[in-house]
Amino acid sequence: MKSTQRAKTLARAAAIVAVFLCATVLPHPANAETGADAWLRYSPLSPQAAKNYERLPPQIVLLGDSPVLKTAQQELIQGVGQMLGRTLHVGIASSRNAIVLGTLTELPALIPELHPPQDLRPDGYWLKSTKFRGSECLIITASTDRGVLYGVFALLSKIARAESLADIDIATLDELQNPYAPIRWVNQWDNLDGRIERGYGGPSIFFVDGNVRADLTRAGQYARLLASIGINGCAINNVNAAPGVLEDSFIAQVSRIADVFRPWGVQLSLAVDLGSPKLIGGLDTFDPLDPRVAEWWRKKVDEIYRRIPDFAGFVVKADSEGRLGPSTYGRTHADAANVIARALKPHGGVIFYRAFVYNHHLDWHDLKSDRAKAAYENFHPLDGAFDDNVIVQIKNGPIDFQVREPVSPLFARLGRTNEAIELQITQEYTGQQRQLCFLVPMWKEALDFDMHIDANIADVNTTPVKALVAGRILHRPVGGFVGVTNVGMDATWLGSPLAMANLYGFGRLAWDPNLTAEKIIDEWTRLTFGNDPLVVKAITTMQLNSWHIYESYTGPLGAGTLTNILGNHYDPSPESSEENGWGQWHRADHAGIGMDRTIATGTGFIGQYPPAVQQLYESLARSPDNLLLFFHHVPYTYVLRSGKTVVQHIYDSHYDGADRARDFISQWKSLEGHVDNERYRDILTRFEYQAAEAIVWRDAICDWIYKLSGIPDSKGRFPTRLSH
Amino acid sequence: MKSTQRAKTLARAAAIVAVFLCATVLPHPANAETGADAWLRYSPLSPQAAKNYERLPPQIVLLGDSPVLKTAQQELIQGVGQMLGRTLHVGIASSRNAIVLGTLTELPALIPELHPPQDLRPDGYWLKSTKFRGSECLIITASTDRGVLYGVFALLSKIARAESLADIDIATLDELQNPYAPIRWVNQWDNLDGRIERGYGGPSIFFVDGNVRADLTRAGQYARLLASIGINGCAINNVNAAPGVLEDSFIAQVSRIADVFRPWGVQLSLAVDLGSPKLIGGLDTFDPLDPRVAEWWRKKVDEIYRRIPDFAGFVVKADSEGRLGPSTYGRTHADAANVIARALKPHGGVIFYRAFVYNHHLDWHDLKSDRAKAAYENFHPLDGAFDDNVIVQIKNGPIDFQVREPVSPLFARLGRTNEAIELQITQEYTGQQRQLCFLVPMWKEALDFDMHIDANIADVNTTPVKALVAGRILHRPVGGFVGVTNVGMDATWLGSPLAMANLYGFGRLAWDPNLTAEKIIDEWTRLTFGNDPLVVKAITTMQLNSWHIYESYTGPLGAGTLTNILGNHYDPSPESSEENGWGQWHRADHAGIGMDRTIATGTGFIGQYPPAVQQLYESLARSPDNLLLFFHHVPYTYVLRSGKTVVQHIYDSHYDGADRARDFISQWKSLEGHVDNERYRDILTRFEYQAAEAIVWRDAICDWIYKLSGIPDSKGRFPTRLSH
Repeated sequence: MKSTQRAKTLARAAAIVAVFLCATVLPHPANAETGADAWLRYSPLSPQAAKNYERLPPQIVLLGDSPVLKTAQQELIQGVGQMLGRTLHVGIASSRNAIVLGTLTELPALIPELHPPQDLRPDGYWLKSTKFRGSECLIITASTDRGVLYGVFALLSKIARAESLADIDIATLDELQNPYAPIRWVNQWDNLDGRIERGYGGPSIFFVDGNVRADLTRAGQYARLLASIGINGCAINNVNAAPGVLEDSFIAQVSRIADVFRPWGVQLSLAVDLGSPKLIGGLDTFDPLDPRVAEWWRKKVDEIYRRIPDFAGFVVKADSEGRLGPSTYGRTHADAANVIARALKPHGGVIFYRAFVYNHHLDWHDLKSDRAKAAYENFHPLDGAFDDNVIVQIKNGPIDFQVREPVSPLFARLGRTNEAIELQITQEYTGQQRQLCFLVPMWKEALDFDMHIDANIADVNTTPVKALVAGRILHRPVGGFVGVTNVGMDATWLGSPLAMANLYGFGRLAWDPNLTAEKIIDEWTRLTFGNDPLVVKAITTMQLNSWHIYESYTGPLGAGTLTNILGNHYDPSPESSEENGWGQWHRADHAGIGMDRTIATGTGFIGQYPPAVQQLYESLARSPDNLLLFFHHVPYTYVLRSGKTVVQHIYDSHYDGADRARDFISQWKSLEGHVDNERYRDILTRFEYQAAEAIVWRDAICDWIYKLSGIPDSKGRFPTRLSH
Repeated sequence: MKSTQRAKTLARAAAIVAVFLCATVLPHPANAETGADAWLRYSPLSPQAAKNYERLPPQIVLLGDSPVLKTAQQELIQGVGQMLGRTLHVGIASSRNAIVLGTLTELPALIPELHPPQDLRPDGYWLKSTKFRGSECLIITASTDRGVLYGVFALLSKIARAESLADIDIATLDELQNPYAPIRWVNQWDNLDGRIERGYGGPSIFFVDGNVRADLTRAGQYARLLASIGINGCAINNVNAAPGVLEDSFIAQVSRIADVFRPWGVQLSLAVDLGSPKLIGGLDTFDPLDPRVAEWWRKKVDEIYRRIPDFAGFVVKADSEGRLGPSTYGRTHADAANVIARALKPHGGVIFYRAFVYNHHLDWHDLKSDRAKAAYENFHPLDGAFDDNVIVQIKNGPIDFQVREPVSPLFARLGRTNEAIELQITQEYTGQQRQLCFLVPMWKEALDFDMHIDANIADVNTTPVKALVAGRILHRPVGGFVGVTNVGMDATWLGSPLAMANLYGFGRLAWDPNLTAEKIIDEWTRLTFGNDPLVVKAITTMQLNSWHIYESYTGPLGAGTLTNILGNHYDPSPESSEENGWGQWHRADHAGIGMDRTIATGTGFIGQYPPAVQQLYESLARSPDNLLLFFHHVPYTYVLRSGKTVVQHIYDSHYDGADRARDFISQWKSLEGHVDNERYRDILTRFEYQAAEAIVWRDAICDWIYKLSGIPDSKGRFPTRLSH
């Protein structure tokens, strides 16, 4: 292992130097576009594009005066002012020709003849042009204040993207949008000392040195970004939660963050330690079935709501990776979740209970042992046992945010439990924002995957993951989407302007998972870089290809990201997956590679899926190549559908991936002069870095496979100098 | 072990011979009272007693013509005829001075001025004397036909027991009775070949040689007995179910049993093998999550209801003692139960899923291993996961019908699941009907045991097991009581006339668990042996003492019944509990005895109880002596509350128990001439036998403890001749 490590370090150094020599590194100019506004830049439209919006009414009538409605009005004035150069005036109810902002409660008093759609759901909005009493009005209405704000952001997005007259005629606008699911949340893994676990965009915007920051400007700006894409909840601290977060004195501090979230309709949530009643509460137990523990949670929650009346609830990680949990007392996860849920229930709060529970001391000698089985084994038996304000939060795949995984079978097996899918915006295993990896196509595959659950239960023809987590198939009261984001103090939020497409894409998918990846990245690109067709074409293409490229040089054929799983989750280190209890095994040896997870001869993991999915994956012949090594152990000489052997595919995909990563450089260079210089240069440097990293990965993995298999590259690229 | 066995055999032979020499064995006369009528003998009342019922109206008006109502009318005519020597005539609606039988649906048309109680629940009844239009009527009404039948039986019981005018004035009768719980069932463990598992009353009344009996007279008589005590359901076959019971041809046969049950309002149920879809259904799987399996159950259940429209549902034992179960496919008990429940649901059927699931290959070397923990560990995680027509059927104690056990902690830990308590009428571990052991006092202790579940959840002050299983505390839709009965073709049903008190007592407790054991045995004795005060006093006293006596010579201080657990469950054989995987361990060695089940140092079983119960049992000082060895391992010299050491208590209790068992003989002899000769002699022989068995037990257990401990009896009765 030592020699491999040294070889990789040498390779990386060589590759990075080589690529840097090709790059022109220029200093950043003073007034750089920093990326801080992300997709809310509100750049002035061209006069031609602005013509589309000439008939936009010149004033705003605001019905109501809640903080969120005021925010909506202010955002509209700002956006229209910046993009169209027009100042919207604040009118009164009798004003003619106005943009009317207000909820369905207020609207009928003003315009009784208007009949809003019957199916406007909470947080949904209706944009409607209408004439009444000879006046031309644009109505932005919703059942909630937050919906009105979302409607304003939707209108501003249309303007910013200069939707053509074919797409939008301000005089005939009639658009109803409802969110697909009630839960559209982000999680931040911020520690109270200001560090962020798996955060690559600088220190916490919330905490510093064990306290809430004095200046919460960035927290408010973050809430604005979130609101603009329909995110309505944010858990602000690490799921590996410090117990101190529930100290009364700390709750007082946290309430200041809730105060800056509130005008944006973003509700604050906390990750909590299940041991809190004992760790900070003065009890000698945290047994969830002990009445004293229940009472402690009730009082604690009451105290939180006294300070944060719109508090959203808790996130809990328990009995996993060393966290305290209900197993201490022989209790179940449902017991643990319910005792807290019952404290939250009177206030309307919810609890997210993470399904990411597994034993990290698995016996790697045992070929039946399989970490992938853990979520199902731990949670499927509890189906129906959770209170109706508990949401089981399930990672998209059964392992841990690898570059490719099948969907977790648990989504199909909690028919009587609220679910949320946990997607990871922060690119822990997918390049850590230093490399381009647009994850929406990956998430789409998971969300669209048909679980084929029993049609008699489902009463529908298809049962995709998105509909299951949204609770739409089995009529759950709540459910939806959680994105682990981990923005930081870096001006670009995530550490890279291009990575923000993942945050934007997550929000858009949570609002409407039926949107295509192409539509989403088109929106984001226009909002972030403007409407120049050359720019839009190049960036959308690069983004859409980026996941497959990253996959092709890091994690072949479903084997998992072959990274250093014991440390940084970034460098190539396939050896680190084996011979330890963490269970991210690929089972590569001299003869073959892959985890046999079949029912017939393997770990039996496939048996956790519904029968139709079992049939897909159990058969080596039917299993898709891109998940082959996730489900089957095969010899290196096994022939794929492409006609290539597994070993040759691995060589080829790594060379191909590294080549395509390098091609990002020339593609980006084609935009010189079409993108502001600041971002052009910053991003060019990033692509040059990525090209070098891809070579490091290519050589490390090819070297490793060659050493294991002894089979040379048929194209003679290998063995290389590094293999000896 | 061999020498102990030989010693016991010798001891038994000696004791039996000794006792038989004292007994006068007479031949049974020809017209013996066989016991077949059990408590429904309807013996003629004395003229004095009959005077109480002079005002009973002379005719019956039956409103309706359902089979159950006709049964009620016929039973009333028969009972009154036999007991009072009066023939009730069948009148018409306009008849004056009538006993009116009819449901609340029919009654108002006849007597609009009558206002039945608002709180009359299903199966409950109202006995009401009333005058209308100058006519004296006795109304027996209910919301269901079955309730009317129960009201008739209640009236007949009052007459048979000659309730005095102080207790019952036929002219002022106004009595409302509601059942405590909807589930009041018996289970029979009959095999299709006619043998009964743990049956001690002859072969099956339902099956012979793999078919349903041609003559089902006894099955109908059994249904009558059951109906008379309010039992409304009967599962007719062994929980270790033959798959063939679900063959269509067999269902056709079974429907004949349903036909003889139906007039008595007893609904038929079947125990089924979870593997049926594969074993007899032609599928290659019985995976409960496979849609083909769901479809198979749907079709099978539809077929059953086509033939048996009032079919009650199924009983399932799975993944236990070698039975097939959902673990084959990584599914849960909830998955298994729900797939069947969903087939039954449209027909109103229920499924009882037994919680008696444990691993019988436990590692007896492992001091943390504990069979007592199994039910909780298997089912508590599934709380809430079962459909609302699934009932989890839980044995009263955590082991298996021992002579003394604490209640199963699972009763307190299924707050969102329907429960039923499984009590064992057939005396598997308590003398097998050959010895007297009236179990109602034992069941009362279990039913009255306060689980102290969280008052905030329960919203009541006490949470006894009876209220939990009835679903009254947590507002479950269904729940209640199941008695494993195992009557057979023997004239006495259970093999002994006195043992029938347990069947009667079970039914009465299922109807009203707040009845005292004294009240129940008083009723049963009067119904079975008449109202002679001497007889009533002697038999009730013997019955009420019998459990403690049996316990004192078979299972000291909660150590479990020290019987042959590997075979007949009858003879003394304390060694058979140890050094095997069945887990009925008492952990007796040279230094001490008892299972350490504490949280602090033992198996942790006590941690499965709610906190207040944990506190009771965890402390050696607070643990009740009669369960000491169930919860704690102590040295033989540990001093009990009585001031005696454990070892001396065991010696003393065995001598005392054997003495008191022998006293049954003289107590019974005091009834000579007061009880019919047939039963007098039969029962005397049984007590003589029991006295001998008690000596066998006494000497075997004392010998065993002495050999282990080396501590002699302080009273010099021991070592005996057998100990060397």
